[in-house]
Amino acid sequence: MPRATVVRRVHFNAAHRLHNPAQTAEWNRTTFGPCNLPNYHGHNYEVELCVEGEVSADTGYVVDVGTLKALFDEHVHALLDHHNLNLDVPWFATRLASTENVALFIWEQLASRIPSGHLTCVRLWETPRNYVEYRGG
Amino acid sequence: MPRATVVRRVHFNAAHRLHNPAQTAEWNRTTFGPCNLPNYHGHNYEVELCVEGEVSADTGYVVDVGTLKALFDEHVHALLDHHNLNLDVPWFATRLASTENVALFIWEQLASRIPSGHLTCVRLWETPRNYVEYRGG
Amino acid sequence: MPRATVVRRVHFNAAHRLHNPAQTAEWNRTTFGPCNLPNYHGHNYEVELCVEGEVSADTGYVVDVGTLKALFDEHVHALLDHHNLNLDVPWFATRLASTENVALFIWEQLASRIPSGHLTCVRLWETPRNYVEYRGG
Amino acid sequence: MPRATVVRRVHFNAAHRLHNPAQTAEWNRTTFGPCNLPNYHGHNYEVELCVEGEVSADTGYVVDVGTLKALFDEHVHALLDHHNLNLDVPWFATRLASTENVALFIWEQLASRIPSGHLTCVRLWETPRNYVEYRGG
Amino acid sequence: MPRATVVRRVHFNAAHRLHNPAQTAEWNRTTFGPCNLPNYHGHNYEVELCVEGEVSADTGYVVDVGTLKALFDEHVHALLDHHNLNLDVPWFATRLASTENVALFIWEQLASRIPSGHLTCVRLWETPRNYVEYRGG
Amino acid sequence: MPRATVVRRVHFNAAHRLHNPAQTAEWNRTTFGPCNLPNYHGHNYEVELCVEGEVSADTGYVVDVGTLKALFDEHVHALLDHHNLNLDVPWFATRLASTENVALFIWEQLASRIPSGHLTCVRLWETPRNYVEYRGG
Repeated sequence: MPRATVVRRVHFNAAHRLHNPAQTAEWNRTTFGPCNLPNYHGHNYEVELCVEGEVSADTGYVVDVGTLKALFDEHVHALLDHHNLNLDVPWFATRLASTENVALFIWEQLASRIPSGHLTCVRLWETPRNYVEYRGG
Repeated sequence: MPRATVVRRVHFNAAHRLHNPAQTAEWNRTTFGPCNLPNYHGHNYEVELCVEGEVSADTGYVVDVGTLKALFDEHVHALLDHHNLNLDVPWFATRLASTENVALFIWEQLASRIPSGHLTCVRLWETPRNYVEYRGG
Repeated sequence: MPRATVVRRVHFNAAHRLHNPAQTAEWNRTTFGPCNLPNYHGHNYEVELCVEGEVSADTGYVVDVGTLKALFDEHVHALLDHHNLNLDVPWFATRLASTENVALFIWEQLASRIPSGHLTCVRLWETPRNYVEYRGG
Repeated sequence: MPRATVVRRVHFNAAHRLHNPAQTAEWNRTTFGPCNLPNYHGHNYEVELCVEGEVSADTGYVVDVGTLKALFDEHVHALLDHHNLNLDVPWFATRLASTENVALFIWEQLASRIPSGHLTCVRLWETPRNYVEYRGG
Repeated sequence: MPRATVVRRVHFNAAHRLHNPAQTAEWNRTTFGPCNLPNYHGHNYEVELCVEGEVSADTGYVVDVGTLKALFDEHVHALLDHHNLNLDVPWFATRLASTENVALFIWEQLASRIPSGHLTCVRLWETPRNYVEYRGG
Repeated sequence: MPRATVVRRVHFNAAHRLHNPAQTAEWNRTTFGPCNLPNYHGHNYEVELCVEGEVSADTGYVVDVGTLKALFDEHVHALLDHHNLNLDVPWFATRLASTENVALFIWEQLASRIPSGHLTCVRLWETPRNYVEYRGG
């Protein structure tokens, strides 16, 4: 059977700040600039979930994009949307809430739950001008 | 001389929540849903500044879009970008930080400072799926 | 109170063809070109619903964009999405399924149901390269 | 009959510079900055042509968007696309090649040729971050 | 010589439905949901054609993007645009008209016709929110 | 440590033409069509700079996207923006100013200057409808 990659675009909004508590206040200000400001800022995160696999002869699908959306809603959107990544999401208690790490969090929440095919990329836009691709590993 | 409208697109990121302290917690939860969550969320706000006026025979311009960008940077971006609208911007101490009111704030900061032509619209996207137009008055 | 316009972007997918049964086959082919082909084609319709009104001091809203989405889902999306405009929607039995008329249909379904403010524009993209604005009347 | 506005999006690429020969070199450098550099720069101009009129009961159209595209191709694209506005287009010999004036040129080329309805706006993006609206007059 | 990938974006509109005649009506409704509705729906399909190869010292090109557009127009657009994939395109008589399979069809129509370099990916958006990548094999 | 790819989107405007002085005027006209017209045309070039590397435990970053922007501004934007590629940029004196070669120029200017991780792709849009990916080599 032929193989293809299916991509579903989803989104969520959240607040965050970048701050490494193991470093000094001055290091944080210099390293992160306005992203270190104390009262948080936020983003409209846009996400692409990429799943590669065999095209089923029965359905013509690698995976139903509606299923990808439902998995994202339950395991990512419910935890991050309209929340503060630093204050509300325990996973970020010990990790910086950078775009790189948010992509890694989404991967960890979804990779083992894809019902057919396998997750090959989480593409995460923090703004329309910068994004991250995480491919596992 | 002919007249035209010039539009400059700019942007900023901020955190906010919707909460009316004159109302009960339950009213706020019901009215604002996840936008009322206590620890803030955020957006990539995209803005269009629209200035209408006569096309100058000397410059071919209604107004230099670089000037619009500089006014926005000084009088809006410096106050809102990477900030928390509720905690960091005194103007919102007595107003809800809704998209409608953020557009009104931008108008108040810029309308009297446009050097040629006059501001006719602030168009403000809170997300790629919803925006507000404020035209004064 | 200040007044503003709030816009919510929504979407649906549908099949249609352009065919005027009061005219000859040749007139239809000449007038509508490939849009007249007999077995239908289709579009991802993108819609902007524009509501103008007073900004409420209690909510900071002209109207809750979530309410606009819910009204669209019930009174437009449920009837048009994944349907054939010509075969499945009685309103089009006596009208051409042009973008102009689809915008008019959406207006008729929603204008009297807006709970605060009033509908001022239905903007309807048939493709990323052409759209229609209907403002009533 | 109901009335609506139909919009067709088209595009062209061109080189230009901003230079007012009635002024000094220093005035030009100060006023136009890098837009005054001598060897030209260029843009992917995106255009929206807006035509308002009655929706025909026969066709469901205000105007066929294919006709708008054909008029643009013949009377604008053929003259501007892949050309240098300053050197190749006589209309700009006595006018600055600003976005405002390019919109005015497009209006003059098309307004009297619209076969049904009337041209209400030429919206012209010079870049994804700035555009002009010209509505005649 | 250096190597690069050139991408041309093109588009077409079509109607389709998802229905597997080897399965029961109930299986089809459960599996495909509204995509199985009997009278078809449709999409604005957006396509990216990716061709990898050596950059020619004579032309600076891997391949002329105008050639890619002409090949697409003749071998894909002429067959699919403004058509019903299920009823009008024999290739889909024995295959589900899923995005995965439409991408595969485009690949089969074009891969052997690329005059320099080779086709490495057909990227096909069914809506702005979901797309498929097919890379052969 | 996990690895990821960070992408920063930037842009510049420039004029150019395609002309190979080693070939006849007729060959140039036939090969490049309107891109060969003598007085130049231009584009809004959009660029994505992709940097792959280890996610730092200290910063959560592969590389600071602000650093990527600053490197681009100094080593690419300052040389190309609002310039004529053929007349103003010595690198193109002996190379065709095709999108492929502009991507290669950007790579040469930036690849050795990335402070952490390494440049894996320069993605360069000449128009919204065509782009090139250069990955070195």
